[in-house]
Amino acid sequence: MSVPTEQYAQVFKSNNDPIERKKVPVSKPGPDEVLVNIKYTGVCHTDLHAWKGDWPLQTKQNLIGGHEGAGVVVAVGELVKDIKVGDHAGIKWINGSCGHCEFCMAGDEPLCTNALLSGYTVDGSFQQYAIGKAVDVARIPKGVPLDAVAPILCAGITVYKALKESQARAGQTIAIVGAGGGLGSLAVQYAKAMGFRVIAIDTGSEKQEMCLNVLGAEEYVDFAKEDVGAKVKSITGGLGAHAVILLAVSEKPFQHATEYCRAHGTVVCVGLPAKARISAEVFPTVIRMITIKGSYVGNRIDTHEAIDFFARGLIKAPFKVGKLSELPQVFKLMEEGKIAGRYVLDTSK
Amino acid sequence: MSVPTEQYAQVFKSNNDPIERKKVPVSKPGPDEVLVNIKYTGVCHTDLHAWKGDWPLQTKQNLIGGHEGAGVVVAVGELVKDIKVGDHAGIKWINGSCGHCEFCMAGDEPLCTNALLSGYTVDGSFQQYAIGKAVDVARIPKGVPLDAVAPILCAGITVYKALKESQARAGQTIAIVGAGGGLGSLAVQYAKAMGFRVIAIDTGSEKQEMCLNVLGAEEYVDFAKEDVGAKVKSITGGLGAHAVILLAVSEKPFQHATEYCRAHGTVVCVGLPAKARISAEVFPTVIRMITIKGSYVGNRIDTHEAIDFFARGLIKAPFKVGKLSELPQVFKLMEEGKIAGRYVLDTSK
Amino acid sequence: MSVPTEQYAQVFKSNNDPIERKKVPVSKPGPDEVLVNIKYTGVCHTDLHAWKGDWPLQTKQNLIGGHEGAGVVVAVGELVKDIKVGDHAGIKWINGSCGHCEFCMAGDEPLCTNALLSGYTVDGSFQQYAIGKAVDVARIPKGVPLDAVAPILCAGITVYKALKESQARAGQTIAIVGAGGGLGSLAVQYAKAMGFRVIAIDTGSEKQEMCLNVLGAEEYVDFAKEDVGAKVKSITGGLGAHAVILLAVSEKPFQHATEYCRAHGTVVCVGLPAKARISAEVFPTVIRMITIKGSYVGNRIDTHEAIDFFARGLIKAPFKVGKLSELPQVFKLMEEGKIAGRYVLDTSK
Amino acid sequence: MSVPTEQYAQVFKSNNDPIERKKVPVSKPGPDEVLVNIKYTGVCHTDLHAWKGDWPLQTKQNLIGGHEGAGVVVAVGELVKDIKVGDHAGIKWINGSCGHCEFCMAGDEPLCTNALLSGYTVDGSFQQYAIGKAVDVARIPKGVPLDAVAPILCAGITVYKALKESQARAGQTIAIVGAGGGLGSLAVQYAKAMGFRVIAIDTGSEKQEMCLNVLGAEEYVDFAKEDVGAKVKSITGGLGAHAVILLAVSEKPFQHATEYCRAHGTVVCVGLPAKARISAEVFPTVIRMITIKGSYVGNRIDTHEAIDFFARGLIKAPFKVGKLSELPQVFKLMEEGKIAGRYVLDTSK
Repeated sequence: MSVPTEQYAQVFKSNNDPIERKKVPVSKPGPDEVLVNIKYTGVCHTDLHAWKGDWPLQTKQNLIGGHEGAGVVVAVGELVKDIKVGDHAGIKWINGSCGHCEFCMAGDEPLCTNALLSGYTVDGSFQQYAIGKAVDVARIPKGVPLDAVAPILCAGITVYKALKESQARAGQTIAIVGAGGGLGSLAVQYAKAMGFRVIAIDTGSEKQEMCLNVLGAEEYVDFAKEDVGAKVKSITGGLGAHAVILLAVSEKPFQHATEYCRAHGTVVCVGLPAKARISAEVFPTVIRMITIKGSYVGNRIDTHEAIDFFARGLIKAPFKVGKLSELPQVFKLMEEGKIAGRYVLDTSK
Repeated sequence: MSVPTEQYAQVFKSNNDPIERKKVPVSKPGPDEVLVNIKYTGVCHTDLHAWKGDWPLQTKQNLIGGHEGAGVVVAVGELVKDIKVGDHAGIKWINGSCGHCEFCMAGDEPLCTNALLSGYTVDGSFQQYAIGKAVDVARIPKGVPLDAVAPILCAGITVYKALKESQARAGQTIAIVGAGGGLGSLAVQYAKAMGFRVIAIDTGSEKQEMCLNVLGAEEYVDFAKEDVGAKVKSITGGLGAHAVILLAVSEKPFQHATEYCRAHGTVVCVGLPAKARISAEVFPTVIRMITIKGSYVGNRIDTHEAIDFFARGLIKAPFKVGKLSELPQVFKLMEEGKIAGRYVLDTSK
Repeated sequence: MSVPTEQYAQVFKSNNDPIERKKVPVSKPGPDEVLVNIKYTGVCHTDLHAWKGDWPLQTKQNLIGGHEGAGVVVAVGELVKDIKVGDHAGIKWINGSCGHCEFCMAGDEPLCTNALLSGYTVDGSFQQYAIGKAVDVARIPKGVPLDAVAPILCAGITVYKALKESQARAGQTIAIVGAGGGLGSLAVQYAKAMGFRVIAIDTGSEKQEMCLNVLGAEEYVDFAKEDVGAKVKSITGGLGAHAVILLAVSEKPFQHATEYCRAHGTVVCVGLPAKARISAEVFPTVIRMITIKGSYVGNRIDTHEAIDFFARGLIKAPFKVGKLSELPQVFKLMEEGKIAGRYVLDTSK
Repeated sequence: MSVPTEQYAQVFKSNNDPIERKKVPVSKPGPDEVLVNIKYTGVCHTDLHAWKGDWPLQTKQNLIGGHEGAGVVVAVGELVKDIKVGDHAGIKWINGSCGHCEFCMAGDEPLCTNALLSGYTVDGSFQQYAIGKAVDVARIPKGVPLDAVAPILCAGITVYKALKESQARAGQTIAIVGAGGGLGSLAVQYAKAMGFRVIAIDTGSEKQEMCLNVLGAEEYVDFAKEDVGAKVKSITGGLGAHAVILLAVSEKPFQHATEYCRAHGTVVCVGLPAKARISAEVFPTVIRMITIKGSYVGNRIDTHEAIDFFARGLIKAPFKVGKLSELPQVFKLMEEGKIAGRYVLDTSK
């Protein structure tokens, strides 16, 4: 497979600088790395935050963003044995990690303080050829469409991880706040595939229709029209949901979810509303033994499993295909809240 | 064993009414109940809260308080087979529960919404003869001193449960906030017996001395003099404690503990400062996958295990013996914060 | 609801004595008991073993067998509050337990050494009116058909428990040995509802058809025609199934299942072939970290959950309805291996 | 730090060929490897098995054995960042693994089918300079004596892992079969440090003395003089031990341990008696819900934790120091069963 020496990428110098389509060199993989010819890349809210510098963590200068890149391996380093040229692979948020801190050793590499973050601390998938550590690039079975799988590489893994972290069992009820959004629509489907019963919480009749009739939720609560706590409790025989997954990007549910979570149940926080705080009264939290926990992206085994559910046809992520050259416009639509589903960009255009 | 028809008890009519020493009838156990001749009863902050009506949950009228009563079984109902007259038993917070709600079935009977609460919704251990459901009274091995074991029946069980709920493993580090108090001094000892390494957090050199040289903590942090977060992190190689147990009765640690908890670690809330809220920033809680959870009293198996640790001589709870007739004075000392360790009252006096 | 003083039951004096249809008195519930008017009762292999005295544990004299009885509560003892006359309830294998041994306290009441066993150590469901301890009778939601739910009360609970004990996660692969039998056909459906992928192992094309096209298995292995180990490994990419559930009543799979179980996977033993032994080579079991475990009947929460899956319409147990008076003939068919699916007997006939 | 180009090693050509002290070249670390100047190496029964070719897995030709090597890092590959020249490190059984199979991803790298095994499929610690993958070499804190820690690198990790796999909780009782041997004496100490109560099972009054008075066991059962099952049950109130750890190298306990294991308890198999089989009756294993599981060596996090217990001074492994040149004699003593405790060899001699 011939690899060019130059390629097109979307680059910005510093936060908020213009995002430019540029010719940049194609990197060569180090001994433990692979070079992936990205075919399609998802665009995630995190990419927008990275560009704008919204988060406390500093981005790399002259950054090529993106962390949902699906493509074909075109070169591997000398140490790489279990993935080879021609295999399909994905560049995901965790690009590499130290391998020996106590988090890496325990399979919690997303918690490694020296983890490399694609499209944030190292260049990511908004280019035609991207580098990833061989142990960290996702393995994508052939036959899985590379455009459709792209959003699984971050959004899918993240919601799947959150559902696992809930420690709910098949047959139990999960309330998903933000069920009709990009993360939420994946979460409802993963939840159903895992045997959970889903109460979808969002607003509007369009999302209601989608949650109930397309994604597989059993109940829908419109937070703009209904008392969420009262409705969830009424659906669950007065006890509350076994787990609540917070995918919302507003603060309010982070301060109320314990109220409609069952005693000894779990509220899993995933969404990252700016400057928001989790808050709950001590007394009922203790007396009812409620757990509140944060869940970040999945590790490598979560990635493997999340892709496997997708490959089995159990997860449909609605997406639109655009061109990599259109990234700035996609960011603009994203800022204006005008994107339904996920944008996936063709890097060859 | 002859059981009198009348006995002395400490009774109050409604919240804040005078607590009176009165002659009251001795109850007869129902078919599934036992009658325990209480020898000693601990006095817990909860008893004070019950008298004062501090909590959202209503107490019984004409209440005989107390829920740390250790004594001898003097009568059993017709259905009771596995405990008999002459056995030693304890009246604890959970006096009985419904037995078939999903919490009872799962061994989470403290979460039963119909649980009977000793010294709160039913009469408790501030009397000479108290009733408990046979399946719920604690079994106390003979040879265990009834005065010393009394505080284990609430305080001991509660901290032991919290340590279990932390899901920390032997060899890991637990920070205990309020380590020098009544709950704390038990918690440090249970933690040590379970193989944990303890960082005691409290204030004053007297408590320092006790935590380090008597109870078995490895480190002490004085919250009045030191930056707790910085010190705990420094002790733990920058990573934070694997778990934090909040026994404090002030709100502040409930809003800061996540900061010195290790990534993927757990903050267990036990203390119940009035009107306090748990609070944490969403961003680091998610990114570091922190768990915050409430832990209430233990169930029957926790009770059994907590008493077993005590019976093996691994737990020393400092206590002073008083007379049941002195209960009002003990409450007064408690309100004034003048009690070090636990008061245990002799019900025969 | 008027309760007669006499009723019809199927009774035998000692093991292997004739089973006789007799008029017997209707019992009155003790303070903690309920009286259930059994409408339908399943017939389980265990009932046959009980009659024949096949097991090391002695049965009651003058036994009324049966432990899959579904009916209506017609009387309750004075202590019983959470179930009332008119509710639907089930008499299951565990009729009652001591309530305070360490197994009962931990929600493992089937392991209580003083458990009462319906149709074995106490009279069971082969009568019109049966007694059960209130905390142990299964709650059956109204609307659930009492004939169809009967087999769930033992067979359903048992296989559901085994699947939980496997500790497999949704998306993982379970090999079920004996998938086409009475337990197996339920197990395949529960497994599917829990998000597992099922490899059904049994023999014959009729069972193949049922497993793949009716019950929801993904693969079928005919043990009479194929090398089970080789086939399961080939289906699972050479690694073996994450868990194997042994429902078989022959010894062979108990000695071979570890071979097609994945490293760090679990073999769950449920079937009880007479005098059989579990056996495995030490070396590969250690090196591959295989777990072999026994799973007995479910506890009360397992019962609740297993019935809930059924009530949601996810489990279809094929059954034929007979008359209670035909019990001896049903036993005969059972001994001759001529029953496909489960027999459910109408106690009014 | 100057590294020579040649060194002394103990080499054998094929199984059972003479073990020869030879000058061999010092290897250079690959990009992801480190070179460790071994100061001391333990000698494990596995080394003897490797030499003799006792196991189904083929050893490397011209093998330098050994997998308990403790020393100082003298060179690192270009990719290695978190361990540096001068750090102390250990060469353990797992020398490296693929990094991306489902076992590696899940932190189960000892189950990786492509794992490199020190002193078996790659050269090990019976030389002065040994190679290990950087992510896999054990980190040994400075201040920990390199001779004493050597046996922890295999024996210590293995028993610590087995104790974790037992899933017993602090305060529960563990029966350790072979408690007075090399693995056993470590196991008793780890068990105690983890809060377990230990019943030591072995034979002879010398081992009795050591187990009870030096290592910290609470009870001792002499299998040559006593009925092990009856004695363990009598010690545990008739119920049996919560877990049994089988370190024995004879087959018998692998066929009897379930009998003195508590209901719902776990038998952990670690020892590898040649050609032995695990065996248990199906009926009681199912009815009592017993788990039997194999436990192999620990992973990297287990290694880290096992060394941490040692570094804290909680584990004392009795050992004798010999010279690397004496390896053949040590093997001879081992075959004759004449070694008490562990031999640790000084590689400079």
